[in-house]
This record gives sequence, structure tokens and C-alpha cells, in this order.
Amino acid sequence: MIDCLIDGVAAQDVSADDRGLAYGHGVFETIEIAAGELPHWARHWRRLVLGCSRLGLAEPGEALLRGEAMRLARGHERAVLKLMLTAGSAGVGYRLPDGAPTRRVLCIRTWPERRLPTEGAALRLCRTRLPFDPALAGIKHLNRLHSVLARAEWRDEYAEGLLCDPDGCVVEGTMSNVFWVEGDTLLTPDLSRCGVAGIMRERILEWADGRGATARIEACPPERLRSADAVFVCNSLIGIWPAARLDRHLLPRAGLIEELLSAVRAGEC
Amino acid sequence: MIDCLIDGVAAQDVSADDRGLAYGHGVFETIEIAAGELPHWARHWRRLVLGCSRLGLAEPGEALLRGEAMRLARGHERAVLKLMLTAGSAGVGYRLPDGAPTRRVLCIRTWPERRLPTEGAALRLCRTRLPFDPALAGIKHLNRLHSVLARAEWRDEYAEGLLCDPDGCVVEGTMSNVFWVEGDTLLTPDLSRCGVAGIMRERILEWADGRGATARIEACPPERLRSADAVFVCNSLIGIWPAARLDRHLLPRAGLIEELLSAVRAGEC
Repeated sequence: MIDCLIDGVAAQDVSADDRGLAYGHGVFETIEIAAGELPHWARHWRRLVLGCSRLGLAEPGEALLRGEAMRLARGHERAVLKLMLTAGSAGVGYRLPDGAPTRRVLCIRTWPERRLPTEGAALRLCRTRLPFDPALAGIKHLNRLHSVLARAEWRDEYAEGLLCDPDGCVVEGTMSNVFWVEGDTLLTPDLSRCGVAGIMRERILEWADGRGATARIEACPPERLRSADAVFVCNSLIGIWPAARLDRHLLPRAGLIEELLSAVRAGEC
Repeated sequence: MIDCLIDGVAAQDVSADDRGLAYGHGVFETIEIAAGELPHWARHWRRLVLGCSRLGLAEPGEALLRGEAMRLARGHERAVLKLMLTAGSAGVGYRLPDGAPTRRVLCIRTWPERRLPTEGAALRLCRTRLPFDPALAGIKHLNRLHSVLARAEWRDEYAEGLLCDPDGCVVEGTMSNVFWVEGDTLLTPDLSRCGVAGIMRERILEWADGRGATARIEACPPERLRSADAVFVCNSLIGIWPAARLDRHLLPRAGLIEELLSAVRAGEC
């Protein structure tokens, strides 16, 4: 079975002069495949378009890209599609020549069976800080060293680590977005200065909106998590992980989190 | 002739799951080859060691890496060696598994014949800002999107663009370090919070030291460049480019810059 398609051709390798490798000049998506389909394709595509625009990449046609994604997804009951768009091999040096074609790198992986302890996720507050970087905030670009450095702070003692901005406010997890619950209100950090605006985060915000619930974007000093009714992290692959603790501080699981979890299980979110 | 060696084997491609591509998890060097030799190898090696340590990469043996570099350099009168060390293909997700081998990607390129106008380089003050990011400052890692974004601000109207930090102080060029001259003193920005500490910058600082000249590391609001006796940018490939102007502001070429240029031409720096 084909594992990767690179510019539409079955291959496993990328040219050593790819600008994605040289500079991280590209964006990526980690996409759920369910029953050979891509249930959230439209959201991933929207974020790819935004990322291409920010990084000066020519946008590949949606039909072409979706066709390649579907070609890999076919026959997979449950799998993960990693999709990268890079600035390809054009030019030498930082300038991207006009009209340089975007390289499409699509690979399929088995679905990661990550088992969350029934009591919930142990979260860590990482020492690694995310710098304020509005030019790159929100998009899922290939410059991911902060997540790498943060993830190197622990081995298996935690399910996820949270990163703070230079002001000490929590922004996101290494591979997830974070929410907290205050009564009937869902809250999540602002991502206009740093962080990746995740697809699952977007789905949750829309769910809250459709339900007439309050969802707010606010600053998140760690004390707000410690005094919340519930805290959870989320992404497209794990769905929602309720948190049992933040370092040594035990977290409750109250407010509307059970309703949200039911909605996710029922496919309503 | 072999163009690239990947883990010691002649090849042109890197695995699509390389962590250098996925996350920018790696470092690189752009090394001058002169008469089949690597005249500044020791400096590049020292920076690679520092970069590996910061990013959690296993350090490849120096003899092994140098041997591969020499194998590519052999027979080249004048060329450029691009050397990347990446965290390779180990693991899925941000955590680098223990004992993961570092991937060595070495490629040779023709020497870039960039002709500088005799009147000097036109410099641009870029809008793109470098965030304060002390965890990554100094090393030459593969997360280079700020240089890419800054370089996209112009085409050929300038020889180089300068990036400022969030306080508005100049840090470096997109592909170079920057110096300015005040009388008999050489000055260059501090790189402890952002920027790449270049090999040519290090050579210039050592030259000044050996000559008994004053070289200082200080903050660089753009006004300091505009009122300097001379401004120049430097890197391992271009050597030193005296600046003729910063945007519309014409720059003089006084102070000890001619002496420094003579030293570079004479191979004393």
C-alpha cells in the first residue's frame, strides 16, 4: 500500500534542498481519516489557505490536494494523514522565486492508540516559553522547535505540557489547545500573538456557540487553570482530554465538561 | 560528481518523515570551501556542537563529519558546503526518543558570485520583527521563517535587509550579521535574546581583539546606524559588505572599516 504521495507520485523521500527542510518554509495538517473519508477536510483546507497566504506559498488547487488525500485515505477505517505543503526546491537563499510551485507531501500513518488514564490527563506547566510572534501566530507552520523543546522536558510522567507566553500566561499545549471551564462558560487563550489555532478548538468554539453557551477568549495565567471547574486539552486526534492535575495541583471535573464530552462522543462537535 | 552525502551515502533525498522537515529539528552551517579545504571548520564545528546540545541532538563524531565534508570538498577550488544535522526519522510526535541517531545531510553548491556595487550595499530596515527567544538565540537552527518573511519584503532593490527585535533595535540581517563603526570602535548587536551568532562576526571580533581595537556588543536602535561612521554586514560567504545606504539614508564609509577590509583581503581576519 502507498504510504506517501509527493507531488502526486508514490515516494518516501523529499529532495534534500527542500525549503521545508532548510527553513521550515511550509505548513502542515494532521488529519483524521475515518472510514476512508476526511470528515473535517474543509477546516484543514481553510487553515492551509491561510498558512500559504502568510508564508507566500502558491496555494495548490483544493480539488487536486483533496484528491491526493482521498487516494491515500481510501480503504483505511481509521488512520492519520499528515499533509505538508512546502515552498519546494526553488532558489538558493531565503528569497522564494516568483511562481515557485508548492510541494505537496502527504503521508499516511496508523491511528495512534493513546490511552488516557480514566482519572484524566496529568498536565505539566513547561519551562519553555513561546515568544510573542504575531507574524506566525495561528497557522500551523513547520517551525516547531518550541514544541520540541517543551516536549523534551518530560518523558511519560505527563500526558501533555502547557506552554506560556513571555507574560507567563498559558497559550497552548505542545500538541494541543487548552480550555478551562468556569461554571457554564468555556474559556480558551487568545492566539493572536503566538500559538496554533487548532481544528478541534474551532469545533468546540462552534459547538458552544450553537448551543447558546458562553465561550470566551481570555488571558490565562496558570492560577485560572488551578481555580477552574475543569481543564482540558484537545486536538484532532485525541479529541478532548480532561485534565486530572496540573503538576501537583489536582483539578476538578465539573461545569459543562461532561456535556461537551457527550457531544464529542455523539459526533455533535 | 557527488552532490550530497546523507549519512555518508551519496543521495539527493531525505526521508519525508525527517524531523528536520517536520519540525525544523536540526541545525545547519554554510561553509566555505577553498582549494578543497575547509578553512574555518573548527568554528563551524563549535557552533554545531552548541546547537546539538541546545536541541537535544546526539553529536556526530567530529572526525566522521569532517571526513564527509572533506570527501565532498575534494577537488573544488571554490564552493559552498551546506551541512545540516537533523534529529532524523525517530519517533512520532514531538518527543525525540532516547538514543535517536542524528542525520547528517551534506550538499555541495557552486560558489555564489554576488557582485556588490562598488559604492556599497543598499540595506533595508525590514518590517518583519525577530521575537525575543533566548532558548534558540545564537544557534543556527532550521526554524528560519523570520528570515524568509523578511527576505520576501523586497526583490533586488537591496543587497540585504536588517531585522529588529520587539524593542525596535537592529539584531542582524536576513543572512548576515551587522556591525557599525564609531571612530575606532567596532560595534555589533547583542545576540543573547535573538539572532544567529555568525562565524564571520566571530572572526571580526577576534581580529579587533588581536589588534588591540575596541569591539563592543551594544544595543542598536536604527539611529545608531544612521549616525555611524560606517556600517557593514558580513557572513562566511560574502565576507564584508560595506553599506552605502540604509533605506534612503546615505551612510559614510569612514573609521576603521578600510583597515578591516584590507585585513580580510589579506586573510588576516
